[in-house]
Amino acid sequence: METLSLGQYDLIFNAFSFGFATLAAATLFFWLGIGQVKSEYKTALVITGLVTFIAAYHYFRIGQSWVDAYTLVDGVHVPTEKAFNSAYRYVDWLLTVPLLLIELILVMSLSRSETVSRATSLGLAALLMVALGYPGEVSDSGGVRWIFGLLSMIPFLWIVFQLYVGLGKAIESQPENARGLVRTARNVTVGSWCFYPVVYFAGAVGLEGPFATVVVEVGYTIADIIAKAGFGVLIYMIAMRKSEDTNDSIKTAVPAE
Amino acid sequence: METLSLGQYDLIFNAFSFGFATLAAATLFFWLGIGQVKSEYKTALVITGLVTFIAAYHYFRIGQSWVDAYTLVDGVHVPTEKAFNSAYRYVDWLLTVPLLLIELILVMSLSRSETVSRATSLGLAALLMVALGYPGEVSDSGGVRWIFGLLSMIPFLWIVFQLYVGLGKAIESQPENARGLVRTARNVTVGSWCFYPVVYFAGAVGLEGPFATVVVEVGYTIADIIAKAGFGVLIYMIAMRKSEDTNDSIKTAVPAE
Repeated sequence: METLSLGQYDLIFNAFSFGFATLAAATLFFWLGIGQVKSEYKTALVITGLVTFIAAYHYFRIGQSWVDAYTLVDGVHVPTEKAFNSAYRYVDWLLTVPLLLIELILVMSLSRSETVSRATSLGLAALLMVALGYPGEVSDSGGVRWIFGLLSMIPFLWIVFQLYVGLGKAIESQPENARGLVRTARNVTVGSWCFYPVVYFAGAVGLEGPFATVVVEVGYTIADIIAKAGFGVLIYMIAMRKSEDTNDSIKTAVPAE
Repeated sequence: METLSLGQYDLIFNAFSFGFATLAAATLFFWLGIGQVKSEYKTALVITGLVTFIAAYHYFRIGQSWVDAYTLVDGVHVPTEKAFNSAYRYVDWLLTVPLLLIELILVMSLSRSETVSRATSLGLAALLMVALGYPGEVSDSGGVRWIFGLLSMIPFLWIVFQLYVGLGKAIESQPENARGLVRTARNVTVGSWCFYPVVYFAGAVGLEGPFATVVVEVGYTIADIIAKAGFGVLIYMIAMRKSEDTNDSIKTAVPAE
């Protein structure tokens, strides 16, 4: 950790605070909508809110850790002994990343057995992906970072394959008013998740210094907001659309955006 | 930041505390009313409460930042190294200002496609308005403050135009018992939002010193309470009025005040 200017320190702190506020607000938005969806989608909304709840908790902790990690000396922020706790993100991802895939499965109206088997296999793959990244993240050795990063890419690529190929038919069979949203949700998952290995490997090729810290911390925060709150709004909309059907079976399905 | 008297410091702190209490109470008022409105208006109340929730969180943080920013020396409050974090307001506005327009759209019973397109365009315009103000707010240069302030007025004027002209017909088509409230809600939006550029440009013409700080901080707090909690109560009343219709279709609509 290096000395940061006022602007650099503040930008990162404000990003963490913004992350907390957005994720906490998203949590309540999802949970307050539970009463408006059919019972088969209520659990999906519970989990969607749990993901942002867990993430909000961690951003609160991350913000606190950031404040403790620096002290103001002559107009610049100097690192204290209490190193910024970067493990918070990995602990968060261990919980939230499997749940993100599960919430998507739960709004796809698959058969009970397919729901269980896909949720389990995707959840475990996500767990493995995050767990493999961690030793590389905390290591000082570039080589170790590369090895674990590449190992972590294996379950990631399997997940991407499942989302496009394994679940392809199920996605195309979604009702018309929700199909576009489900496709978008899948694309947002893969697109937003791609950000994390980019940051990870930038660390592996030696990107460092205050500017890199700003890019990494603000970048991860924005990626988390998109991947959890933004994605969650798509899940919410899918659940809402699919819950309209029973009330308005005559109403022609509005084209999904 | 300058030295403040006991009275000046306390007034501002108490304004922040009052802001938190009012906004937190408003949040719970809106959410506890969700069960009493028709399903098409529930999301509007969720969002109305989210706006005041996010604002309450930020007033809590703002109050804390205020306390950390001053130290009591010989009966006056002297600035500490920890500068008062004025970014909190902008981060708050980035989230809440788009949502304020969206909650108004959601109680206007527009068609699905118009609801989505207006909510999106107004939300983005609001986001742009706030984002353009930020560089001016944090700059020491009066010139920079002017430039960004004027740029920010462009999306603001577009929003005002939409509220009076673009949505004019939709507002006049509201049911009789809610029409006056919707007009009032629109007027409160524009009226309360006008306060912010006045404060912003007062900073650009060099208004400063302890008295200016009191006016700015207390003023912004009052404006936020009116624009979020006060406006939210109007949205709540509109949703309640429009939910009466189905129960009392024989009852002649009470003229809106």
